[in-house]
Amino acid sequence: MSGPPPAVAAVRSAVRRVLRALPEDTTVLVACSGGADSLALAGALAFEAPRVGRTAGAVTVDHGLQEGSAERAESVAGTLRGLGLAPVMVETVRVTGAGGPEAAARRARYRALNAAARAHAPAAVLLGHTLDDQAETVLLGLARGSGARSLSGMAARGDVHHRPLLELDRATVRRACLLMGLDPWEDPHNHDPRFARSRVRHEALPALEKALGPGITAALARTAGMLRDDADALDALAVELRERARSDGGGLDVASLERAEAALRTRVLRAAALDAGCPATDLAARHVRELDRLVTEWRGQSHIDLPGGVRGRRAAGRILFER
Amino acid sequence: MSGPPPAVAAVRSAVRRVLRALPEDTTVLVACSGGADSLALAGALAFEAPRVGRTAGAVTVDHGLQEGSAERAESVAGTLRGLGLAPVMVETVRVTGAGGPEAAARRARYRALNAAARAHAPAAVLLGHTLDDQAETVLLGLARGSGARSLSGMAARGDVHHRPLLELDRATVRRACLLMGLDPWEDPHNHDPRFARSRVRHEALPALEKALGPGITAALARTAGMLRDDADALDALAVELRERARSDGGGLDVASLERAEAALRTRVLRAAALDAGCPATDLAARHVRELDRLVTEWRGQSHIDLPGGVRGRRAAGRILFER
Repeated sequence: MSGPPPAVAAVRSAVRRVLRALPEDTTVLVACSGGADSLALAGALAFEAPRVGRTAGAVTVDHGLQEGSAERAESVAGTLRGLGLAPVMVETVRVTGAGGPEAAARRARYRALNAAARAHAPAAVLLGHTLDDQAETVLLGLARGSGARSLSGMAARGDVHHRPLLELDRATVRRACLLMGLDPWEDPHNHDPRFARSRVRHEALPALEKALGPGITAALARTAGMLRDDADALDALAVELRERARSDGGGLDVASLERAEAALRTRVLRAAALDAGCPATDLAARHVRELDRLVTEWRGQSHIDLPGGVRGRRAAGRILFER
Repeated sequence: MSGPPPAVAAVRSAVRRVLRALPEDTTVLVACSGGADSLALAGALAFEAPRVGRTAGAVTVDHGLQEGSAERAESVAGTLRGLGLAPVMVETVRVTGAGGPEAAARRARYRALNAAARAHAPAAVLLGHTLDDQAETVLLGLARGSGARSLSGMAARGDVHHRPLLELDRATVRRACLLMGLDPWEDPHNHDPRFARSRVRHEALPALEKALGPGITAALARTAGMLRDDADALDALAVELRERARSDGGGLDVASLERAEAALRTRVLRAAALDAGCPATDLAARHVRELDRLVTEWRGQSHIDLPGGVRGRRAAGRILFER
């Protein structure tokens, strides 16, 4: 007996690994837009879950952003039910708020997915992001230029969210979708150059590939995983340093900061500035660098003006923050 | 009295900052190819050095890769002498060895610069790399996909090498060169699509800028600085962890590794594998990940085959490396 085609086997095996790692009483929900990636994921989940006695359902989100989106969501739900998934939920959201349409849609989508997970707690939500999505996320993070955390992409495993396909390339996952006999929907937004992700996917990544070779997508995804570990380690160590540097009269003890590595010192200064009321969106690397100079290049500077009307200054061997 | 144009002032002030930070007895040598960036740097150094009583000379390297390169080097040396720099040296190198012509030329160049620095010890070598060069270096490092270190670009300050222009964009530096009345030489290799850096400069970065906005070059350079600090901190902490994990009978103590952050654990495992004889060029992230599974997902795996005929295995609570 020959097994399934390699692409299908790869997707199923990725799902199997996640199922195995989840506690037995967890309800597994796949988030499915009807696109090839999440549809392949749904197909694999519907195949694997009953084999290990799991409850597996699905959520599809209607963002209400395109003509006929409600009908499409119902049609996707029909496909998901046809796969044998249950429960299958259609969540209708309103996309509003700051930061552009992509960010707003993402926020609304995750809110709806988390609500569905809470309604079936304990539940895990499987997301269909691939290696290619991860590479795109790293490039989008590069534009922020705010260090390891902004380059660390998406987590393979979170408390609720799991991304089984994060090490599989999109071509494999799409092939699996078609080989499973599923009919994916192509979101026109994926090709709309108004969206940064679409520009990254269709222009920036191909140009990088042309300049640096075809391994760049995998290299970007690998980078994300390593920098996520780095950021986790440094954040944890920075919390310890901040505790040690906490001075009795308020503020941070310069002597403790001076002895620390720059990467930890700047993280502590950034965290303290945020706690003092600097808005995260406005606190830039150059502000943190200026604060750091109060520690490492102290020549009697007066205070430093930070966003949100916060001032940082050095006095009596301490770094103090005031509004 | 009006000062110099802003571009010239920016380059001079960057040079001034470096001169101020160098010990007084240091001979300052500018590495100058005759290109706009290093020529502007040479011009600024020739202007600033006498004002603070410094000896400032120059080195130009003849790579012997292009027709007429010896004559060009002599002509650059003439310009440098005309600026008042002394001594001015022409170093002729032979570009050979592995890793492609770019890497071989770079190795030969740095060897020659270091020899010149040693001949005038104590000496510092100023290099004309700009913010744009730094951004390109980060993108070239992305292709390696080997974590923070490969994304940390070039150091602004090393033991011998200093890069005063690393925070200035190329357009400013070129403008400064022309405003100083200097006539730069345009290396045709900079436009030759056979070279990865040229492809990154003329294709990849413009595509990224189009997708992500004009701030991407500065963001990449900023990223380099932050990830360099991160890598320095994590490398230092990994050295401490390795000391703690060093077990009496050889190998690494699993209990010490288990308690550590993944970012430190993997650095220690990688360093131990290199010391055991794995060639750095072949030891990939996936090998290190497999080694890490001996620590974190131990289910009685037998040994792991590593490059260079090295085996990693777990026994009696230790990770051992054998050839």
